[in-house]
Amino acid sequence: MAEAKNPLVSDREVDFQLYDVLDVPSLCRLPYFRDHSRETFDLYLRTARRLAREILFPTYRSVDQSPPELKDGAVKVHQALHDVYRQLVAAGVVSASKSAEVGGQQLPLAVATAANLYLMAANLSAFGFTLLTAGSAHLLENFGSDDLKRAYMERMYAGEWTGTMALTEPQAGSSLADVATIARPAPGGHFLLSGSKIFISGGDHDLAENVVHLVLARIEGAPAGTRGISLFCVPKRRVEGGRLVENDVRVTGLIHKIGWRGLPSLAMSFGEEGDCRGWLVGKPNQGLGLMFQMMNEARISVGCHAVATASVAYQESLLYALERPQGRPLASRDPTRPQVPIVEHADVRRMLLRQKAIVEGGLSLVLCTAHLADLAGHAEGEEERRKAKLLLDLLTPVAKSFPAEAGFESNALAVQIHGGYGYSSEYLPEAWMRDQKLNSIHEGTTGIQGLDLLGRRVVAEGGEPLRLLLAEVESTAARARKAGVDPAWADRLLAAGKQIGDLTIHLGGLGLGGDVEAMMRHSADYLRAFSILVVGWQWLRQAAVALEVRAHRPELKDFAEGKLCAAQYFLATELPQVELLAELCRSGEDSYARVRPEWL
Amino acid sequence: MAEAKNPLVSDREVDFQLYDVLDVPSLCRLPYFRDHSRETFDLYLRTARRLAREILFPTYRSVDQSPPELKDGAVKVHQALHDVYRQLVAAGVVSASKSAEVGGQQLPLAVATAANLYLMAANLSAFGFTLLTAGSAHLLENFGSDDLKRAYMERMYAGEWTGTMALTEPQAGSSLADVATIARPAPGGHFLLSGSKIFISGGDHDLAENVVHLVLARIEGAPAGTRGISLFCVPKRRVEGGRLVENDVRVTGLIHKIGWRGLPSLAMSFGEEGDCRGWLVGKPNQGLGLMFQMMNEARISVGCHAVATASVAYQESLLYALERPQGRPLASRDPTRPQVPIVEHADVRRMLLRQKAIVEGGLSLVLCTAHLADLAGHAEGEEERRKAKLLLDLLTPVAKSFPAEAGFESNALAVQIHGGYGYSSEYLPEAWMRDQKLNSIHEGTTGIQGLDLLGRRVVAEGGEPLRLLLAEVESTAARARKAGVDPAWADRLLAAGKQIGDLTIHLGGLGLGGDVEAMMRHSADYLRAFSILVVGWQWLRQAAVALEVRAHRPELKDFAEGKLCAAQYFLATELPQVELLAELCRSGEDSYARVRPEWL
Repeated sequence: MAEAKNPLVSDREVDFQLYDVLDVPSLCRLPYFRDHSRETFDLYLRTARRLAREILFPTYRSVDQSPPELKDGAVKVHQALHDVYRQLVAAGVVSASKSAEVGGQQLPLAVATAANLYLMAANLSAFGFTLLTAGSAHLLENFGSDDLKRAYMERMYAGEWTGTMALTEPQAGSSLADVATIARPAPGGHFLLSGSKIFISGGDHDLAENVVHLVLARIEGAPAGTRGISLFCVPKRRVEGGRLVENDVRVTGLIHKIGWRGLPSLAMSFGEEGDCRGWLVGKPNQGLGLMFQMMNEARISVGCHAVATASVAYQESLLYALERPQGRPLASRDPTRPQVPIVEHADVRRMLLRQKAIVEGGLSLVLCTAHLADLAGHAEGEEERRKAKLLLDLLTPVAKSFPAEAGFESNALAVQIHGGYGYSSEYLPEAWMRDQKLNSIHEGTTGIQGLDLLGRRVVAEGGEPLRLLLAEVESTAARARKAGVDPAWADRLLAAGKQIGDLTIHLGGLGLGGDVEAMMRHSADYLRAFSILVVGWQWLRQAAVALEVRAHRPELKDFAEGKLCAAQYFLATELPQVELLAELCRSGEDSYARVRPEWL
Repeated sequence: MAEAKNPLVSDREVDFQLYDVLDVPSLCRLPYFRDHSRETFDLYLRTARRLAREILFPTYRSVDQSPPELKDGAVKVHQALHDVYRQLVAAGVVSASKSAEVGGQQLPLAVATAANLYLMAANLSAFGFTLLTAGSAHLLENFGSDDLKRAYMERMYAGEWTGTMALTEPQAGSSLADVATIARPAPGGHFLLSGSKIFISGGDHDLAENVVHLVLARIEGAPAGTRGISLFCVPKRRVEGGRLVENDVRVTGLIHKIGWRGLPSLAMSFGEEGDCRGWLVGKPNQGLGLMFQMMNEARISVGCHAVATASVAYQESLLYALERPQGRPLASRDPTRPQVPIVEHADVRRMLLRQKAIVEGGLSLVLCTAHLADLAGHAEGEEERRKAKLLLDLLTPVAKSFPAEAGFESNALAVQIHGGYGYSSEYLPEAWMRDQKLNSIHEGTTGIQGLDLLGRRVVAEGGEPLRLLLAEVESTAARARKAGVDPAWADRLLAAGKQIGDLTIHLGGLGLGGDVEAMMRHSADYLRAFSILVVGWQWLRQAAVALEVRAHRPELKDFAEGKLCAAQYFLATELPQVELLAELCRSGEDSYARVRPEWL
């Protein structure tokens, strides 16, 4: 079985992205990153690679096969996760990109994200505990009172306690406007919460003595809808006089997820006995806005999960295709000759190259967004920060949904390459396919990403973010031409950029004219077209950089050839979809708009 | 949960296809079907519907959750399958379409297939035992000696014993040229077999006292490759002097499949102790040809599995979307108003309509091929039989692979519509998604279907099959125009037909010129383009018939509107892909052709 040799993510690929494409060490000229250098980046990456390969990945299969158990109201996770979690904490994974002030290492997000990709590829569930903790601690860091930071955030960043995001409710699902958990002000400055949540990842477990929930709830009497939602810090055990006291938070059910099976997903109730205390984070009724700042991070993390899960499966199917003999070339079928490895069959190479195009296109995209987040947070000029932020916001729904959707296809191809073996749980590709499916659902479904992109993000700031993107496309096209990339590729990308630009103006016009439904009807197709443009841009950039580096580093010849093949594949096979989808969006095709439920 | 109300397959839909689109009762003028009428068809369909809904479906979840066990060399299947299997046999499912001579009912395959769709949708695994038995008994019926028929076939058609197809070997996989199981002639006219097989569905179980394997093996000294393969009848227990004697057939392993979990898939060995007797079926060295006659049937059955699995999930997600309240329309987001069922959201309707287009497009296709098989076997004129056979052969790879590939997407959409609930095993869509994945793998992977279609089928008989298909497309276009279907739809389909015709001539020319590799490079893209044309043709035909019937049956108004919406969707969204894919196939795009393993 290929498993033992699986690198999870290619080191050469990550180095190429960080150092050749993004030139991450140049961030070290910025004050925030001044203590860093390529050496400290490499040191951290080495730690993550080792942890991922030696500690996390060897537990993956067993963790997948023995999901958590709920007993007497408490959740027990897989035994192996105890050691794994401790080692993740010890390596500083929870706070690697956070400021030294809160105990972090101030690493660029681009570097921390690259490192995380290995850990995610090795064992999504195990890594999930640290990621959720980092996200919820970050909310407290940004918006919590000093008391809350002292009491909870510090222990979370230290990995002693873990955290969750508790948004979803059974009756509301994705419709956060319908959050019904109630918070009643109590003497002493806290609130008493009561309500139910569902799908709370990491909501309870035995890895740490406390779990801190960041909960969306409605202060009694608050306005209906999203404008009446506040954010609360609600620990499982509250700190009271230096001791931990049970805080009336209950596990009411354990969901049997089909993937991510090491990380418990729970139904929970708050305040069944009227003694669940929560502390307001930020101002009343502004909870959704605060949560959404984290949600952007969370969405990019979902893109990372998806890239990582597609990557480990791509590596596995590549190893399998190199080793598994079967059949003979079309041109010489002499049955007395030995069989050839299946990588020799063009259709198997098609599937592998498609996986590579998806994995590395997605990887390039998520690292690009992480790098934009670094610039948005720490670049020197305010204008540069502003522009990075605009572009980051625009790319977020794509970084979330492209890897999730295309990644699922890629994971299915890994199963397909393994044939009948791939259809058995003796091999891992089926497990990664299950893991992957969640990414199109959680933190906003793909449908919601489409509505968000077209309804909010491309029309923000008078269209400036899209203009910034198209300017990037143009400068990449110029760079590619200069590097000697086939000029037809750059032309194709520019044409696709123009199609998206024109289409956006057209659809925006429909919205401004008052027909929001017509504008939004093809938001899913728009998201797909937009995503292909964005990933096509990533691929053209990779092709350009590959030619640039090959010129003076002959050892990268094979690597560069692979990049050029994958870029060619994506630009020839996927990019032409942009025009077709743009025509569809424009055509007003109204089949599903007008279909009535009783016709289905 | 919607489960209890799920109809599995829509009755109205099946009636429309059988009676309005195909006019199956007109087959009753043919001698072979003369004892039948719409009444006997309906009677059989009613039986199948009842069995599917009342007996098979209620066991599905439990069967999925408790797969077979291998103990002391014998396989025990789920307890519930014993009763289910008995009832399937009692209803005559094994031999419904077989001749009265062998105890069958001589039903048209179109009708038997429609009935089977319900049974497959209800419980693929349970139905699998009968389907495998029918297929292997049919091989004996067509090519076995009278002794074999008497000894084995009769008991199989009667459902007393079951059958398997034992092709695949661990070292050979899809490469049947490398089958290495050996058959040595023995005194007494039989052969002694020795070798290993893998992925043998239903290879052992406790539902019947005997299992009859139809085994591909190589007679000692036979030529290498596919020209040296023979077919053998190898029972688990052989009939000897009126008794059953163990025949040295062993179960060596049970594969943990991720779906179809009620039907055991086994690794088996034949002749470990030198006493495994097999009887030749047909002539020596012609086994592959014989098997492939069944393989065509088997491939259409795979298409049916896929349609059925997509159908039951479509029905489930439709019921869920009608019941689950969440969010509000884009145009009126007032949070004080109640939430609406998610079917009200355009993007949910998009997913539902896409499922419908796939499910009913596939259903129309598989019933069309079954009807062609009826004509190929029993039409009065030889010329009509010949033409039906040519078209049937051409459509077989499409009927196998389109439902498998598009069906997987459709099943994933059913999960997506269920959101977080869809990601849990408390709901059924995830199980159907697992079931579906096998269909792109077994009985020839999708890649192999592409090679088969382009390399053999479209170039057979000087291209006559393709000309027949294009003539059907033209006559459907004329019918659609006459019925009042938007003429642009017919134009689009005709244009796609012309693109496929031209492309085929172009690619065939490359092959004739000696460059087989260039011809076959985009066989996967060719298969996709070809499939979209074929399913587009099915949709245009459905649209035409829907308008025809609506004219005089007002009760079908809603149904016809739904048909028109789905046809519009498919023809507007999918059909334009044909041109793009044809351009790609023609372009010679060579990324994966030239990529080398070390570049990946």
